[in-house]
Amino acid sequence: MDKKLYGAVEGGGTKFICAVIDADLRILREARFPCQSPSETIANCLNFFQTAQAQLGPLSALGIASFGPLDPRPGSHDFGKILATPKPGWANTDLVSPFADALSIPVAFDTDVNGAVLAESLWGAGKGLKNLIYYTIGTGIGGGAIAENRLIHGLMHPEMGHAFLSHNYTQDPFPGVCPFHQDCFEGLASGPAIEARWGRKAYELPADHAAWELEAHYIALALVNTALMLAPERIILGGGVMAQQHLFPLVRAEFLKLLNGYLQIPAMLRDIDTYIVPSGLQGIAGLYGALALAIQAA
Amino acid sequence: MDKKLYGAVEGGGTKFICAVIDADLRILREARFPCQSPSETIANCLNFFQTAQAQLGPLSALGIASFGPLDPRPGSHDFGKILATPKPGWANTDLVSPFADALSIPVAFDTDVNGAVLAESLWGAGKGLKNLIYYTIGTGIGGGAIAENRLIHGLMHPEMGHAFLSHNYTQDPFPGVCPFHQDCFEGLASGPAIEARWGRKAYELPADHAAWELEAHYIALALVNTALMLAPERIILGGGVMAQQHLFPLVRAEFLKLLNGYLQIPAMLRDIDTYIVPSGLQGIAGLYGALALAIQAA
Repeated sequence: MDKKLYGAVEGGGTKFICAVIDADLRILREARFPCQSPSETIANCLNFFQTAQAQLGPLSALGIASFGPLDPRPGSHDFGKILATPKPGWANTDLVSPFADALSIPVAFDTDVNGAVLAESLWGAGKGLKNLIYYTIGTGIGGGAIAENRLIHGLMHPEMGHAFLSHNYTQDPFPGVCPFHQDCFEGLASGPAIEARWGRKAYELPADHAAWELEAHYIALALVNTALMLAPERIILGGGVMAQQHLFPLVRAEFLKLLNGYLQIPAMLRDIDTYIVPSGLQGIAGLYGALALAIQAA
Repeated sequence: MDKKLYGAVEGGGTKFICAVIDADLRILREARFPCQSPSETIANCLNFFQTAQAQLGPLSALGIASFGPLDPRPGSHDFGKILATPKPGWANTDLVSPFADALSIPVAFDTDVNGAVLAESLWGAGKGLKNLIYYTIGTGIGGGAIAENRLIHGLMHPEMGHAFLSHNYTQDPFPGVCPFHQDCFEGLASGPAIEARWGRKAYELPADHAAWELEAHYIALALVNTALMLAPERIILGGGVMAQQHLFPLVRAEFLKLLNGYLQIPAMLRDIDTYIVPSGLQGIAGLYGALALAIQAA
């Protein structure tokens, strides 16, 4: 039995979650810190891990799954840094070095959604699949991808939430909320987009509200494009908006309607219920994502 | 020096090109056959390779880079087959077994665009890059992808030409020509779409015709989405429409306009001229793609 302990950091725009987890996925210690200035936030996290190590013994590695954009490519000049984020004070923050220096253990670093897709492939709804997509649809929209068994990084990492969607202004005159692209996926379908369009928060809208059909349309458009561009074996949807379980059948039906018989693949057409699925790690995909990165690094 | 000989088949909807190529990329024999019925076409190709082998000596492997959809996954039940193509008589054609049986050599099989992106990564405009996209924009539109040094197959293979694009009917009332999706990338921007929209073939339209600005807009939309979803290090454009070299600066300018300052990556923003580039294997990417597949199989 692997007795190793791993550190996991889920870095979000509003809070950082730290945990010590063992190889059986048991969370032995956990703490949440508001995302303040980088120096305060990092100090809080470091203090947590140093205390945990003193009590539990040494950690084998630390994984950080963070909001982006960031540089996840080991060996790159900017590896470990948050890049040009609009979040005040956080651009160019080195999130890896403070932990690597103070804890003297391997530190892995990737986007929250790349962590999540890795965790889903190990323990969640995409177990054993070599081509997998994870989208979080909530305050923001982001996607992580595994292709041929490897996380996609490329030039940096995917930014799937900002892909442009077909937007019919007659059907939906709402212009979108993305400050960069207005009516990209995030601009049209994130939680803030729903709230700005309908004047109420997503969770306040009843299941029969017209909002959900439109929301399913945009999500399905994004998923059809994702399926055509990356040919994943499964698409996993998490995040606050997808907590509305009634969205899943709407998204699946619209996906098939848009695909319109193109691609005669049973795994996609006949088995649509297992092609577009909820997260298997409800609410904990981010933290387990950081754990998965730590295990890879150890 | 590698003295091996390879067979290469570029299977297209109108013609099949067969060649024997050595490891120095010299084409020793070449023949073109119209794409007739599967049995006639395969017999013509087989006869070519058998004659070539009698004259030149044994081939080490054969690579087939073909129109799709097809099953490129060795070990899969349908490996080697053309799948549900609208091309009469070709659905469910096994393109691999006749060659493997008659020639008794390893036969590799993939899409024309996956072959092309592999060839570009070995000898063309994407030499040495681990994350690369190749689009052909011509009679049809298709894309091939290398992510983290591997061709993406996934559930089947990417079908990038059918991704939906944002379509502003006020700016462009043309409904699109795709029989499945109407206004997907292929439906809006392929050669037949240009001809149907403007009443003239693409190569007959002067460089200052409004057609090109609109064409560049759609191509740039598709490339922005591709860059956001796959984070390639470079995007290579080939095919008949892209033979209009004046399209490249228009596409690059529109790409930057649409991205609107999101992603502060010098390799994409400052170096846009080397980010979106023409094929380095002008006209021969398909055949060299089949060669690249053969070399992988040998």
